[in-house]
Amino acid sequence: MTRAWRCVHSIKPTIAPARSFHNSARRLEIRHVAELPPRLPPQFKETSTDDLLALRWPSPPRNILLVRKDNDAEARDALTEFAHHIHSTYPDVSIVLEPDVAKESHSDLLFPVYAPSGAEDQHNLYQEKVDLTSTLGGDGTVLHAASLFATAPSVPPILSFSMGTLGFLGEWKFHEYKRAFRQVYVSGAPSPLAENTNDTNNPSTADSLQAWSNVKGKSLGQSRCSRILMRNRLRIGIFDSNGQPLPHEAPFAHTADQCEDIFALNEVLLHRGANPHLANITILIGAPPHQRTLTTAIADGFLVSTPTGSTAYSLSSGGSIVHPLVSSLLLTPICPRSLSFRPLVLPANTPVTLRIEADNRGKEIEVSVDGVRRQQGLGAGMEVRVVGEEVTTGESGKRQWTGGVPSIVRSGVGGGDGEDHWVGGLNSLLKFNYPFGDRG
Amino acid sequence: MTRAWRCVHSIKPTIAPARSFHNSARRLEIRHVAELPPRLPPQFKETSTDDLLALRWPSPPRNILLVRKDNDAEARDALTEFAHHIHSTYPDVSIVLEPDVAKESHSDLLFPVYAPSGAEDQHNLYQEKVDLTSTLGGDGTVLHAASLFATAPSVPPILSFSMGTLGFLGEWKFHEYKRAFRQVYVSGAPSPLAENTNDTNNPSTADSLQAWSNVKGKSLGQSRCSRILMRNRLRIGIFDSNGQPLPHEAPFAHTADQCEDIFALNEVLLHRGANPHLANITILIGAPPHQRTLTTAIADGFLVSTPTGSTAYSLSSGGSIVHPLVSSLLLTPICPRSLSFRPLVLPANTPVTLRIEADNRGKEIEVSVDGVRRQQGLGAGMEVRVVGEEVTTGESGKRQWTGGVPSIVRSGVGGGDGEDHWVGGLNSLLKFNYPFGDRG
Amino acid sequence: MTRAWRCVHSIKPTIAPARSFHNSARRLEIRHVAELPPRLPPQFKETSTDDLLALRWPSPPRNILLVRKDNDAEARDALTEFAHHIHSTYPDVSIVLEPDVAKESHSDLLFPVYAPSGAEDQHNLYQEKVDLTSTLGGDGTVLHAASLFATAPSVPPILSFSMGTLGFLGEWKFHEYKRAFRQVYVSGAPSPLAENTNDTNNPSTADSLQAWSNVKGKSLGQSRCSRILMRNRLRIGIFDSNGQPLPHEAPFAHTADQCEDIFALNEVLLHRGANPHLANITILIGAPPHQRTLTTAIADGFLVSTPTGSTAYSLSSGGSIVHPLVSSLLLTPICPRSLSFRPLVLPANTPVTLRIEADNRGKEIEVSVDGVRRQQGLGAGMEVRVVGEEVTTGESGKRQWTGGVPSIVRSGVGGGDGEDHWVGGLNSLLKFNYPFGDRG
Amino acid sequence: MTRAWRCVHSIKPTIAPARSFHNSARRLEIRHVAELPPRLPPQFKETSTDDLLALRWPSPPRNILLVRKDNDAEARDALTEFAHHIHSTYPDVSIVLEPDVAKESHSDLLFPVYAPSGAEDQHNLYQEKVDLTSTLGGDGTVLHAASLFATAPSVPPILSFSMGTLGFLGEWKFHEYKRAFRQVYVSGAPSPLAENTNDTNNPSTADSLQAWSNVKGKSLGQSRCSRILMRNRLRIGIFDSNGQPLPHEAPFAHTADQCEDIFALNEVLLHRGANPHLANITILIGAPPHQRTLTTAIADGFLVSTPTGSTAYSLSSGGSIVHPLVSSLLLTPICPRSLSFRPLVLPANTPVTLRIEADNRGKEIEVSVDGVRRQQGLGAGMEVRVVGEEVTTGESGKRQWTGGVPSIVRSGVGGGDGEDHWVGGLNSLLKFNYPFGDRG
Repeated sequence: MTRAWRCVHSIKPTIAPARSFHNSARRLEIRHVAELPPRLPPQFKETSTDDLLALRWPSPPRNILLVRKDNDAEARDALTEFAHHIHSTYPDVSIVLEPDVAKESHSDLLFPVYAPSGAEDQHNLYQEKVDLTSTLGGDGTVLHAASLFATAPSVPPILSFSMGTLGFLGEWKFHEYKRAFRQVYVSGAPSPLAENTNDTNNPSTADSLQAWSNVKGKSLGQSRCSRILMRNRLRIGIFDSNGQPLPHEAPFAHTADQCEDIFALNEVLLHRGANPHLANITILIGAPPHQRTLTTAIADGFLVSTPTGSTAYSLSSGGSIVHPLVSSLLLTPICPRSLSFRPLVLPANTPVTLRIEADNRGKEIEVSVDGVRRQQGLGAGMEVRVVGEEVTTGESGKRQWTGGVPSIVRSGVGGGDGEDHWVGGLNSLLKFNYPFGDRG
Repeated sequence: MTRAWRCVHSIKPTIAPARSFHNSARRLEIRHVAELPPRLPPQFKETSTDDLLALRWPSPPRNILLVRKDNDAEARDALTEFAHHIHSTYPDVSIVLEPDVAKESHSDLLFPVYAPSGAEDQHNLYQEKVDLTSTLGGDGTVLHAASLFATAPSVPPILSFSMGTLGFLGEWKFHEYKRAFRQVYVSGAPSPLAENTNDTNNPSTADSLQAWSNVKGKSLGQSRCSRILMRNRLRIGIFDSNGQPLPHEAPFAHTADQCEDIFALNEVLLHRGANPHLANITILIGAPPHQRTLTTAIADGFLVSTPTGSTAYSLSSGGSIVHPLVSSLLLTPICPRSLSFRPLVLPANTPVTLRIEADNRGKEIEVSVDGVRRQQGLGAGMEVRVVGEEVTTGESGKRQWTGGVPSIVRSGVGGGDGEDHWVGGLNSLLKFNYPFGDRG
Repeated sequence: MTRAWRCVHSIKPTIAPARSFHNSARRLEIRHVAELPPRLPPQFKETSTDDLLALRWPSPPRNILLVRKDNDAEARDALTEFAHHIHSTYPDVSIVLEPDVAKESHSDLLFPVYAPSGAEDQHNLYQEKVDLTSTLGGDGTVLHAASLFATAPSVPPILSFSMGTLGFLGEWKFHEYKRAFRQVYVSGAPSPLAENTNDTNNPSTADSLQAWSNVKGKSLGQSRCSRILMRNRLRIGIFDSNGQPLPHEAPFAHTADQCEDIFALNEVLLHRGANPHLANITILIGAPPHQRTLTTAIADGFLVSTPTGSTAYSLSSGGSIVHPLVSSLLLTPICPRSLSFRPLVLPANTPVTLRIEADNRGKEIEVSVDGVRRQQGLGAGMEVRVVGEEVTTGESGKRQWTGGVPSIVRSGVGGGDGEDHWVGGLNSLLKFNYPFGDRG
Repeated sequence: MTRAWRCVHSIKPTIAPARSFHNSARRLEIRHVAELPPRLPPQFKETSTDDLLALRWPSPPRNILLVRKDNDAEARDALTEFAHHIHSTYPDVSIVLEPDVAKESHSDLLFPVYAPSGAEDQHNLYQEKVDLTSTLGGDGTVLHAASLFATAPSVPPILSFSMGTLGFLGEWKFHEYKRAFRQVYVSGAPSPLAENTNDTNNPSTADSLQAWSNVKGKSLGQSRCSRILMRNRLRIGIFDSNGQPLPHEAPFAHTADQCEDIFALNEVLLHRGANPHLANITILIGAPPHQRTLTTAIADGFLVSTPTGSTAYSLSSGGSIVHPLVSSLLLTPICPRSLSFRPLVLPANTPVTLRIEADNRGKEIEVSVDGVRRQQGLGAGMEVRVVGEEVTTGESGKRQWTGGVPSIVRSGVGGGDGEDHWVGGLNSLLKFNYPFGDRG
């Protein structure tokens, strides 16, 4: 597949600052996240029972990013409770917070936390340091957490807690946090921990065992692996009318001129915005030289969604509900000036280009990624290029899972699986198939 | 994945009759298809350019089944013209016809044709003998041809000619038949044919070359491989209220008590039929012990479709358009008594069970497969179990493509590909995105 | 408007039998309904407060038809309780039952009931005798009661009780039956009853007052008029390919050769039924000579619905929800083979003709009226002609309301109106606008 | 019906300027429209043949407003050609133009034209002077012409010419302009013109005859009346959170503090606009004290449309197609966060209130009327109140048609009617019911 829609620059890792900006080691301290040891990427193993993956840490996770809903007292209290539990039970684990959250919350905590110094460098730092992200809020909070890794080809697992009603993305209820975190923490640990193993895939077995053994409190019990639903993302590039990549904006960019592709968990939206005139967009399928025009369409807007996004904006706009394990892209029009633009489901590896036509009456088309609008709209000839992220490399059997957002699926005490979650979500969240009348 | 929805009996090949039922070798003769040499299964090679496969015969195809539209003078004439062309240009090729077509058409032909003796044994004979199927008609004719292989795990490639306007399944226009057949015939032949090769994958190279060399007329030219869109099918079993498989009926069954699963190219339909009362169906996802209830729904009917079927009945009923390469099943309700039963797209390997509820007021629910209605309806407790056919075996790289309906995609003189066809189909067949008014 | 779609024969009243078929006057007796005094048609007065009408009896209603749900113990018990209440409290009122119900239920009752002798003559007898119909069941029971007047240009008011959850048509809960019946019974009585009036529109004032005064038990209280939602019906004729009217069938016909138009409360449906091939129907708008072809369409079927029917089958098939006071017809396709056949809403006085095209492959198209299927399907060239019933005659101010199904709207003790009912129905019955996710 | 949603101020006619602002009487002159004689309101007579009305002028129209599409050379040329034709053939007719059009076009014309001096006073002047409006452009031009009368309870007839393809509102093709104008001009004239009549409804018969006789060129022929489709409008008021009416803005307002209701021909739209967060709106039905909450809904926006608007934005958003003679309002959600918010069709006289909820996150909701966005959005507690315009006064028979936009329907030389136009529009403009595939 020709990668015409990829940004021409490759991703260059930024250099972490060599020293912390907080020298004193006081209680209530905010330390710089660069001080932390580097990220420990886990492995995701295919299983025989279903299409979920098994999470295997090489050694226990050390750096946990906690993300919480904004302006929400309940989420703030939950963060404090959760952080204290982690600190007291898993002493080797460090807590990472977003800069603003760190400022607001560190006085609630009895131990140091880690944070980037500000918004400008945080994307690279999270990518380099964070082993696991945990969210406290709703689906919007999970989307926000994912956006912190919008430039990362490899995203740490996400353990999401819903504060109120379950959402489609928020898998766990907050009151389950102790069990949930323990299960994730020990996922992949040898069983029993004390057993002497010759695990050749795990050279640092002794150290790992030591760390896992440091966990305080009750026995870790059977080290059942956490199960992962790998949610595919969209890879998105924005190009000017000469085909040159345009820089992204905060919160997706980590530098002012970053023009690498970014990743979306739900969807990218093109919309007329406040412009009363409709958007006039040409949709092309495939990458040059095999690119072909699907249609030129007039509408309020267009969505390209992941299956994860199929229960979000696309659903409001008439799209089908697509299971997150169907490797696909959804192309859904918003209020098209046509009776016959039925939503489309395309293979995930289909490059889709949305080109702004010249006759949009001089107005700009708005672009939003996962609900965050780009300040600068798009003019005539500009393009948004989208393709599903590649989530595996190598052949089957030796396949490595590298892309996607690894979502830790809720499992009950007695088992249960992700299918359950999705089916349950349809029924509880959508009031799917609620019957009317008595036509019979 | 537990195969609870599979039929318990395995497929037993039937024994072909040892002698022909036509002893005289007259000109306008119908010979028994059992006299033909066995089928030559081709290989389907993955290519680097796109998601289509390359067709490679081990040696030239010998037994060609021609299927034509019923009661259509144009299709009958086309069959005569096409058969004569094949007979005169490719002398090693034998023509196979359905029994009724053979009776109607063999007097138009100047050479013997092959046919089963009747409907009862034809499915097995086609599976054992046919190298290539070619259809002359519309999408309905392609569906019919596919139904002749409804019990076959491996289907020969289909070269489909449209007699009038192109359909979604009819890929070629009839006037292209000479070029189309030649391209398919030589697909996989060494190039140039005369060249001495040591192709170890092709032990009968010398014989093959001889056969390919026997082709009369102009040079075979460059042996560009035909390109294959592998259309996934549904695997369907019907079970009584005790979980025992029910036998299928003609045209899908080849024996009266056949209860192996059958395959559908477009969809399976459950419908109230002439019953004025709605169907009351429970839909379950997954196979035991992981099976879960999605919902119990009341509707005129339900469809489980392939992506190929997404532009057929499912589209009429509100389903999205799904590209044939998205590995998925569509679950689409027909006139549900609910405002909130949005069509679903599930992974192809998701077992879906549709169970008839007890309160269908004593009436039976009709089952249709690819538009052919089962004579015997289903009563309370009976189930239709559906899952997407597995189309590959083995690991990537060494993957064998064995399932699906290999559809030979039209390619222009100057190239072109399947994407083109699908995009073109949307625009010409659906009048997709035809604009209205001037809202702007 | 030319009435080409009207049946050519006018409605001839049948002669009621001159003598009863039960001569003895035993308890538990079934008497012939022909013995009852003739129907007392009420007047429907426009009011200034809203679009509902006020019910005014010239004198108290005497003959009450009770219709109950089939095979339902609860409805049977409710009928017994309701009938005894009426008999004991309103001694001048006679209870009419359908023949089968009379046979099943008269032994539960301590007084004679009235019934037709069988199905064949019941339509005319109901039209001639019944002052008020009361239903005990669901929406299906109301539809059935309306079908008993399917040939009647003037339908008595319907007081509908829901046995379980409220439907769209069942307005009252059964436990309210005493209050509900009293309110209807006295609707239009002078207030206070004892007052001497010179109502010139009510020549039999004295007699009426006497009857109203005979009511036993507590004071009738303030004679607030019952409020009527006049539900418009469809007038339907079926014609052969020569334009001759075809006879209707039971339960809509009262004689074997009846071919007058019949009336539907919800919808008329044309459907392929068990035929796997789609219906091919030409839809014409207007009456000759101004008739014009709207389109020729291929679909599973077509619905012409009233606004009342807009929350029934039409809703399942994608139609909009139309308030019962919008004077209109809905034309809704069922699974059309088109992306662009959006449902239509036409003026109620638009004649709509659905003509069966010749190429329906020799199969018949099924016709159903309010969910009851005609035994005999329709063949090529046959037509179903539909127009909204005219519900008023004369000019505004002197307008007479003669057509439609007068539905007695539930009113609370403290007021309330039909708008309330409809809005409530949307929210409770449809789970209208149930929100999903948290896209915000 | 309580008019709580009406503006509290009544409409006060403004005083026309006493003198012209152009004193010199030069050839290419622009004169002030106030110099013209007052408007001659026509009558609209009900006819027996269909639901269209017959146009009857009391005497020939004198002041014709020509409105043309902006920035369109073809429309500019058409205006010149049409104006010269009127001036030379109908010498008693004066041409009125919008101020900007007058400035651009008067140099193309060989005679004086009339215009308001600027935008600020034009609405009142048009209402007081214009007998007939003729548009040259598309549906957008008709909407713009209607907006010039957005504050007028009585709108002059509109003769609309389409420059290119016919729209839903543009009834005539431009090349028909001579016949079209003549037919409108003589509509209602006595026949034959020379005949002596004693038409008591027409006191100035002699003068009228004289004017009609002044028409130059060929005989006026048979004075067949032009036929009128009376398009109902929406009456719209905008209120602050205290229930006080807010002033409207240009182009709908004629003074800075005008807060009378305005009228829309297509729809009023509430939309989130560029705000990424959804609109949170409570929809109420009825006027106090009978007002009831339908639902509180979250969506991109909401539309209240006329039947005329049912083929505009509402259609894009999933609404049904409603015939312009169905007296109704459409309530259509735009991308609702619900699977079960089906579009609604309400009686035209139903007051609908859309109230902005408090939790719209501090952002304003945009309001657009007929595609023109209000500069000032709406905040929490503000309301848009909508009801269908009343188009008749008095009783049937003596009914006066005063509201609505009188649209002159195209009629062929040999007859034809509005039904034809609407049916034709469905088929040509919507590609209504375009079939796909061959499912049969």
